[in-house]
Amino acid sequence: MRLIIRSGGESAMEEWREQFKRHSPDLEIVSWFDDVDPASIDYALVWAPEPGRLATFPNLKLVISAGAGVDHIVSDPAWPRHLRIARMVTPRTETEMAEFVLTSALMLTRDLKRAIDQQARRHWELYDSLRVAADMRVGIMGLGHLGIAAARLLAKVGFPVSGWSRGATTLPDGLPSYAGPDQFPEFLSRTDLLVCLLPATEATRGILNRDTFARLPRGASLINAGRGSHMVTQDLLDALDSGHLHQALLDVFDPEPLPPESPLWTHPNIIITPHCAAIPDRQERARHTAWLITANERGEALPNIYDPVRGY
Amino acid sequence: MRLIIRSGGESAMEEWREQFKRHSPDLEIVSWFDDVDPASIDYALVWAPEPGRLATFPNLKLVISAGAGVDHIVSDPAWPRHLRIARMVTPRTETEMAEFVLTSALMLTRDLKRAIDQQARRHWELYDSLRVAADMRVGIMGLGHLGIAAARLLAKVGFPVSGWSRGATTLPDGLPSYAGPDQFPEFLSRTDLLVCLLPATEATRGILNRDTFARLPRGASLINAGRGSHMVTQDLLDALDSGHLHQALLDVFDPEPLPPESPLWTHPNIIITPHCAAIPDRQERARHTAWLITANERGEALPNIYDPVRGY
Repeated sequence: MRLIIRSGGESAMEEWREQFKRHSPDLEIVSWFDDVDPASIDYALVWAPEPGRLATFPNLKLVISAGAGVDHIVSDPAWPRHLRIARMVTPRTETEMAEFVLTSALMLTRDLKRAIDQQARRHWELYDSLRVAADMRVGIMGLGHLGIAAARLLAKVGFPVSGWSRGATTLPDGLPSYAGPDQFPEFLSRTDLLVCLLPATEATRGILNRDTFARLPRGASLINAGRGSHMVTQDLLDALDSGHLHQALLDVFDPEPLPPESPLWTHPNIIITPHCAAIPDRQERARHTAWLITANERGEALPNIYDPVRGY
Repeated sequence: MRLIIRSGGESAMEEWREQFKRHSPDLEIVSWFDDVDPASIDYALVWAPEPGRLATFPNLKLVISAGAGVDHIVSDPAWPRHLRIARMVTPRTETEMAEFVLTSALMLTRDLKRAIDQQARRHWELYDSLRVAADMRVGIMGLGHLGIAAARLLAKVGFPVSGWSRGATTLPDGLPSYAGPDQFPEFLSRTDLLVCLLPATEATRGILNRDTFARLPRGASLINAGRGSHMVTQDLLDALDSGHLHQALLDVFDPEPLPPESPLWTHPNIIITPHCAAIPDRQERARHTAWLITANERGEALPNIYDPVRGY
């Protein structure tokens, strides 16, 4: 069985080989950058593969995305549509994302950007950060595995949580959920802290825009841990500068890396993290990939398979 | 009934009067800075009263600390020892402190100081923050109301939590707890993230010192939300610079305000917040004070009374 890998570049191959030796010793690992017979490839683990290349493997059985999203694969006009794409959603990824959203939500609740800026200026000034979790109604956009994990964890800590998704997904534990464009305005009107965990699809592109922000209560804040393409940057800056929105914590950008000249870097009400919400390490990805291949060879159903109709 | 207030200065008196009008309309409010008949004072709500002044009120029934600590009162050599001091510990304070510790613990777990510094330099660099809550054994020093509230919340999120106190207090929910100097080394050896919520007493002064740090596993981190006097600043700097400790988040200092020339401000592995962990606002303190006075007048038992033997 042969797995071709394009993730982390040539320099990552040594670690990939070591990890797979541990988790699936019979699997033969080849690098995307090596000269290999395309017909010999059974599986592909990829991040942002060069357009057209995946279509050259005639015997490929499954494409495995190295991340939770698949936009970096389906943006290839020639991606092999007869194949399934498995998204890299592991239990650990869910925990990492849920804890990242919790960390971000608490930082915004406690106004910690103010402490961060004071430290940078060596300036001591007491301020009351009077809000606690119970005061912040959190609205989560996107109710896949990651959105549900985040909703559960935040509710446990005491945040009033609701969720919204394009389809009719509902939240567990009796948490309120809204679906589709019709219920979007009501969802937004009850949200003090909007969390975007949507997949990147044509339908969700630019969904974090002026109309969306305008429907949030005055003083609301934003966390974007979905994709940079969800957000219209100028609309966010306008909403912050007018005082309608209070703060934003952004983990994803379009493009990445965020260019040094972006006004987001220096805005006093924006916290920037470098796409670190939920990154499974290579050990975790190797373990999950090995498990997916074994399950597929046994003809078992695979979780988190990309659905072109839903868009994720 | 007359309450004298020394908290927030003269400029805060208008807000105090408004708050007490709402919560206890019959109470007469006088300012510490007004010329009043000392014999007419029944109650005192104070923060850092000038030494000697409390002793001049012959008919005082109760001293109410404007904060959870009482060190700012008992440092007065002439404080009226025949009186009880009620500490300002409200349910809201407990929630604020627990959520502050949770926020801090998550920020250290996710290495967010790195993202903060990168933003300040407009520098984009991916980094794996591979740890999740379950990987960080949190040890809480100080098991009063605040310590217990923090322990419960952190355990709920998935942190393995244990506690230590000078006396034989134990944690609820079956969480492991250690007591006294004998069990202190064992407690420290099992702690990746040390949280200090101790009261400021002679016995705990300087407890965050080189010996304590040396007993923590290499790579451990520190949160100090107790008092600045708990920490030996140079010992912390040495432990961070040698790499034995990884990071620290400090909310309290000695002295406060932290002077601009302190090396703590600019240390790359230190996050500084300006004593904002748990500050009840004036509405909350007025409500609690009014409730304490009513309960005391009815002869009911009062919670969180300072115990000179325990030191808090």
